[in-house]
Amino acid sequence: MSSFDDDTRVLADGKHSFTGTVHPAWNIGANPNGGYLLALAVSALRQDAPDHHLDPLSVTVHYLRPGLGGQPCRVDAHVLRSGRTLSTGRAALVQAGEARIEVLAALGDLHPGAEPALTIPPPPIPPPDQCPQRSGGQQGVELPILDRLDIRLHPDEAVAGRAGSAQVSGWIRFRDGRDPDTLATLLFADAFPPAVFGLLGMIGWVPTIELTVHVRRRPAPGWMLGAFRARDLVDGRVIEDGALWDSEGRLVAQSRQLALVRQAERKP
Amino acid sequence: MSSFDDDTRVLADGKHSFTGTVHPAWNIGANPNGGYLLALAVSALRQDAPDHHLDPLSVTVHYLRPGLGGQPCRVDAHVLRSGRTLSTGRAALVQAGEARIEVLAALGDLHPGAEPALTIPPPPIPPPDQCPQRSGGQQGVELPILDRLDIRLHPDEAVAGRAGSAQVSGWIRFRDGRDPDTLATLLFADAFPPAVFGLLGMIGWVPTIELTVHVRRRPAPGWMLGAFRARDLVDGRVIEDGALWDSEGRLVAQSRQLALVRQAERKP
Repeated sequence: MSSFDDDTRVLADGKHSFTGTVHPAWNIGANPNGGYLLALAVSALRQDAPDHHLDPLSVTVHYLRPGLGGQPCRVDAHVLRSGRTLSTGRAALVQAGEARIEVLAALGDLHPGAEPALTIPPPPIPPPDQCPQRSGGQQGVELPILDRLDIRLHPDEAVAGRAGSAQVSGWIRFRDGRDPDTLATLLFADAFPPAVFGLLGMIGWVPTIELTVHVRRRPAPGWMLGAFRARDLVDGRVIEDGALWDSEGRLVAQSRQLALVRQAERKP
Repeated sequence: MSSFDDDTRVLADGKHSFTGTVHPAWNIGANPNGGYLLALAVSALRQDAPDHHLDPLSVTVHYLRPGLGGQPCRVDAHVLRSGRTLSTGRAALVQAGEARIEVLAALGDLHPGAEPALTIPPPPIPPPDQCPQRSGGQQGVELPILDRLDIRLHPDEAVAGRAGSAQVSGWIRFRDGRDPDTLATLLFADAFPPAVFGLLGMIGWVPTIELTVHVRRRPAPGWMLGAFRARDLVDGRVIEDGALWDSEGRLVAQSRQLALVRQAERKP
């Protein structure tokens, strides 16, 4: 088993109730990564869903409070309706008596052989060994999560502010060799530096208000490619659009998040 | 008061509980429009939120079952956390004892004067009087909602299948002269024909699984312009991206929905 499987494992603790631990290994600075918290909650929701509805088709999470790394958690996960093609449910991850995240999701079954009628091709990027590793120094915070994830950034975008536009792209995989799946895709959708860093340089914390991920197919083994862009920033709130492709160049997921763009002095 | 205000009005009926009616005037075929149901639910959530958090900043709705036009409804609306800049809550619209939609939303305060640092310009389109009205005949279903909404489609896209690509754009306003606001924007984000009609022609029902709308500013009075496009269709599920601009050409909202593309014989 890989650390991702270990660290997203939850145990049933009553009807629609599960317990687990928010492991600090997935922190960004002092706070657990939002994609990791989401994967933990969806891991519980999968246990509440029928066995043939395990792929997250559409997942929305709202971040109410930062998670507490190293602390136990409870996940209230409840499938509200289960039909032939999908199950819809909600989940809340609770620590120290307070909901940290709220999730609304549809789970279903992604057919590995489906050929897309319309799809989005991956952007050009040099191979992983020609892309520098993401590091905490580039971002001004400690990134324990980089001991778990190997992230290689596009050479033109690896230094904050250098891209001259609000975009970031790169490769991602687990360091322990675990292959990606649809649960890991939720984590990968929130593991790259904020796209606004490419435009504004280091600006400290960019806390996510809400993240929606649509998973479109099960990824092939190997590296995944992510590309993220912000085209809409007003009044300190940015919308970042993203997409992830697998090692065969097939679209695996689309993502969109609403985040606050704060000044550097406000970083946690 | 306009019909939209009348038909989205709910009354408090206990703590976090509201009652109203799903009016059949907003039907698409036999079913209430999904954007109208969403506006009804968010109308209740606004009553549960502080008075200074009335703009829907980020709203996600999952459609569990079709609404029942002409029937009363209950909305369970509950603000889960209220902070300085936004309130997060969930809502469920219930009819005949079953949840029809589930909503997770962040409400806040959109500052009218905010100038965007990044934004998306509107696409070119002829003025409203040169765009044909949307009609039920174009889509193969009766559209009572068109007695409430004046929708003018781009002349190159007004006949299903003619555009040759999965896109639709056009103008929208209330027939009774009510000006748009951020609540109406939720309805407008789901009131155009499905973008896949432009590619596939009339294909019957395109039921929405999930819709997320990000409202970015309060719209100016007058017509709003909507543009919707699908770039990702696989295994009978499509992602449609949309945006809405106000009469001053400013971006008001972005939307994304996951929908089923069904065969014509499956329409309800």
